[in-house]
Amino acid sequence: MDMKMNAADLQAFLARDFPQVAADFEFVEVAPPFVTMALVASDRHLRPGGTVSGPSMFGLADVCAYFCILSVLGPVALAVTTNCSIDFMRKPRPGRLLCRMELLKLGRALAVCEGRLFGEGAEDKPVARASLTYSIPPKGTSHR
Amino acid sequence: MDMKMNAADLQAFLARDFPQVAADFEFVEVAPPFVTMALVASDRHLRPGGTVSGPSMFGLADVCAYFCILSVLGPVALAVTTNCSIDFMRKPRPGRLLCRMELLKLGRALAVCEGRLFGEGAEDKPVARASLTYSIPPKGTSHR
Amino acid sequence: MDMKMNAADLQAFLARDFPQVAADFEFVEVAPPFVTMALVASDRHLRPGGTVSGPSMFGLADVCAYFCILSVLGPVALAVTTNCSIDFMRKPRPGRLLCRMELLKLGRALAVCEGRLFGEGAEDKPVARASLTYSIPPKGTSHR
Amino acid sequence: MDMKMNAADLQAFLARDFPQVAADFEFVEVAPPFVTMALVASDRHLRPGGTVSGPSMFGLADVCAYFCILSVLGPVALAVTTNCSIDFMRKPRPGRLLCRMELLKLGRALAVCEGRLFGEGAEDKPVARASLTYSIPPKGTSHR
Repeated sequence: MDMKMNAADLQAFLARDFPQVAADFEFVEVAPPFVTMALVASDRHLRPGGTVSGPSMFGLADVCAYFCILSVLGPVALAVTTNCSIDFMRKPRPGRLLCRMELLKLGRALAVCEGRLFGEGAEDKPVARASLTYSIPPKGTSHR
Repeated sequence: MDMKMNAADLQAFLARDFPQVAADFEFVEVAPPFVTMALVASDRHLRPGGTVSGPSMFGLADVCAYFCILSVLGPVALAVTTNCSIDFMRKPRPGRLLCRMELLKLGRALAVCEGRLFGEGAEDKPVARASLTYSIPPKGTSHR
Repeated sequence: MDMKMNAADLQAFLARDFPQVAADFEFVEVAPPFVTMALVASDRHLRPGGTVSGPSMFGLADVCAYFCILSVLGPVALAVTTNCSIDFMRKPRPGRLLCRMELLKLGRALAVCEGRLFGEGAEDKPVARASLTYSIPPKGTSHR
Repeated sequence: MDMKMNAADLQAFLARDFPQVAADFEFVEVAPPFVTMALVASDRHLRPGGTVSGPSMFGLADVCAYFCILSVLGPVALAVTTNCSIDFMRKPRPGRLLCRMELLKLGRALAVCEGRLFGEGAEDKPVARASLTYSIPPKGTSHR
């Protein structure tokens, strides 16, 4: 799959279209069909004890899948999540949480991604796995 | 299923154990096996345009399932989400977002809930549906 | 939701388009957005001990969702399952296994169904729950 | 993860405990945490047109996950599927269908697997992806 947006493009897109959450995420690697992002955790992402909350993990997977699709499809602001199945397997340790997402299918109407969340340096002990489906708007619906 | 915690009990538990998010949620009805909760949306739950974000909807479903289990099981702080499958079906309109969750199974090791998210007064046009599995700690592991 | 195909229409469609499995299923009730079907279990649906196998339960949910969509949409042979999330909660007892499926959303491109499997007379102790997404072919793609 | 059962052990276990379906499956590779199996498709696995049916794909993923767990855990006949989320992404072509499953977590009570289904020689264009959770019986519950 060819890359239509690189890390800098995606970061700019994130900052412009999702100003409220842009500071929460960093691009670690953009290498289609893979995109790896990190959660820049602050207090509101944490539960008592300092572990990242479930909704924050969901949010990381969701954002990472979105940008995984955009890296190949180009800027299509209207792609929306239609399904997510997520398994929480281990308690995240304090420290940076990463998500590595793979674009498995990019069809005309649907895109399917699958990936894992893991603490930095512990990819072999994933904290969670997630699969997500995005609905792709019909062609011609460009961004802005 | 008998009720072990009513709305006031659950509200107190929420305030004490999840102080960071307690102000985000209200109990609307506690009638086991059903619990209905509302998201008290603030800026950080919203996307540009004023619609509730995906992670906030996930969070509402997750919290509602947790308290659905606790309403029947009593205070068991260590129950943890192991799986969630969520389908986003319609864009939420501005206004109060509710979740009505049903406890389908309460086994020794696992509990399964299923529910829907909908705007107030629009239960027939659900915004999302979700099913969640919680792992229940072995008996004897009481809360505090 | 208006009914475009009733039980007799659906049964005829099943017999014509899925001759290999038509004898395995019966329509119990067609009342959109709900469709209830029964599995007519034979040896190949059973595991040692006489309980219905997981794939047979999946198949019942899948077929029931398909006909739930067709009851409202009319004969559209090209609708295909894109996602299924299924939770197995109790061991099915010997006896007839039913599935009651609800069409939650019928969009232009996607349909979402949710339902439960239960032994006859035991709807309050569901054996499994399932949610399914179907991709709907673009309009104009009629059946035959 | 150490291997407690190799391909021959698993094949013997399959033949003894699941005689009804043993002829449907072959072990291609057992290399924990990965197990690859093939569906030996016969008429009852196929839909008109010769493509493998959804329930047969579900069944292949389910069996492959089961033996993925047993390859590491040893013979535990009572492990049962509690959840499966499966995405169907491409129509399978005629020919052998494989499933490569990975054991992501083996806890005391739950095991989580994730894998892909693909036609022989086409692993880069997966037909489906699936994640499954199995409930593990408490220790001491040995097989026979």
